[in-house]
Amino acid sequence: MGRPKQARAVRTREALLLAAAEVFDEFGYPAASVSKILARAGITQGAMYFHFKSKEDLGRAVLLEQASMLELPATPAGLQQLIDMTLYLAHELQHNVLFSAGVKLAVEQSEAGLGDFSVYQDWMDRFRAELDEGDAHGELLPQVDTAEFARVLVASYTGTQLMSRLESHHRDLPRHIAVLWSYLLPGIATPATLARLIVDPERGRVPA
Amino acid sequence: MGRPKQARAVRTREALLLAAAEVFDEFGYPAASVSKILARAGITQGAMYFHFKSKEDLGRAVLLEQASMLELPATPAGLQQLIDMTLYLAHELQHNVLFSAGVKLAVEQSEAGLGDFSVYQDWMDRFRAELDEGDAHGELLPQVDTAEFARVLVASYTGTQLMSRLESHHRDLPRHIAVLWSYLLPGIATPATLARLIVDPERGRVPA
Repeated sequence: MGRPKQARAVRTREALLLAAAEVFDEFGYPAASVSKILARAGITQGAMYFHFKSKEDLGRAVLLEQASMLELPATPAGLQQLIDMTLYLAHELQHNVLFSAGVKLAVEQSEAGLGDFSVYQDWMDRFRAELDEGDAHGELLPQVDTAEFARVLVASYTGTQLMSRLESHHRDLPRHIAVLWSYLLPGIATPATLARLIVDPERGRVPA
Repeated sequence: MGRPKQARAVRTREALLLAAAEVFDEFGYPAASVSKILARAGITQGAMYFHFKSKEDLGRAVLLEQASMLELPATPAGLQQLIDMTLYLAHELQHNVLFSAGVKLAVEQSEAGLGDFSVYQDWMDRFRAELDEGDAHGELLPQVDTAEFARVLVASYTGTQLMSRLESHHRDLPRHIAVLWSYLLPGIATPATLARLIVDPERGRVPA
């Protein structure tokens, strides 16, 4: 009985999330207004309040659910999958508006008054799972601390996307992520692993 | 004859720049107002207009002159000096308000409507000069492209400081910059260079 209503509620929430992401992306968070978001989503304020109480609520949802429409691998598989994932993310940043707006809010969140580190922790955990899997298969040099390197990777990825957004709206991001890997891999991968890993910006065009 | 007036104008401009940096740091750029900045600087609006026409002018000056109160080495000297400089910057971010506010504006500048890539280019040029000097002294592996790696370093530094600001107000930044180097150096330095480089977070406490 409640099923159709529930499905509609899910669709309404998703429409609001996407409209908020679009408006944040277009106007920036401070200039984005709830009325712009409602107009974009074609949803009334009453229907919104069931899901989100304020612009801050929408901002937090875009920030924390940035990865919810990505197709990420379900099971860790090691370094090659980690490389492929980062290149896939570089391509998604070019056209996946929820991901792009969420990443922008993560970087500029002090202006949005959100102050949430958990989204960085989530990416660190995901990257670390791939690194631990690679480590279990002998891909990593003995001195690598997977938690430490996962943080280095999230940090360097964040800075790389931020500069690429400013300079080229992420057009050159896949190339810059490939360059980043060329300098990071010698510090973490065994020579045998290094010889077989493929770092090709084009691999990111399809989900890893 | 004009000397005392000129000296006063320089002091007024500097006081405005520092007050703007403090207010941007404290309230965020969007919430910062010219009246707050004037009150902080103890300067009248008329005196300000001689130097800056608007909040945007002040924002651009804080962004572009972020390094003006740092003590940076005058002559490139190679990898050790580059490492020491990045650690010195990590300590300066903890208490140099003009540098800290300028770096924050660089990261969040789309919200401030500035859209200026030149500040990243300036850091890339400075880092590259050290790398080129290191290369001239045989410190770098043959495959290193100094322009490319200078960009990787600026990007990974930017992301590292951004996460450290959010998590610990830069308290743990020197340590995280040292960790970053431990993963970057094997990809750029010859084994002999690697063996003699010192990456010590404490070295940054005094100017490089």
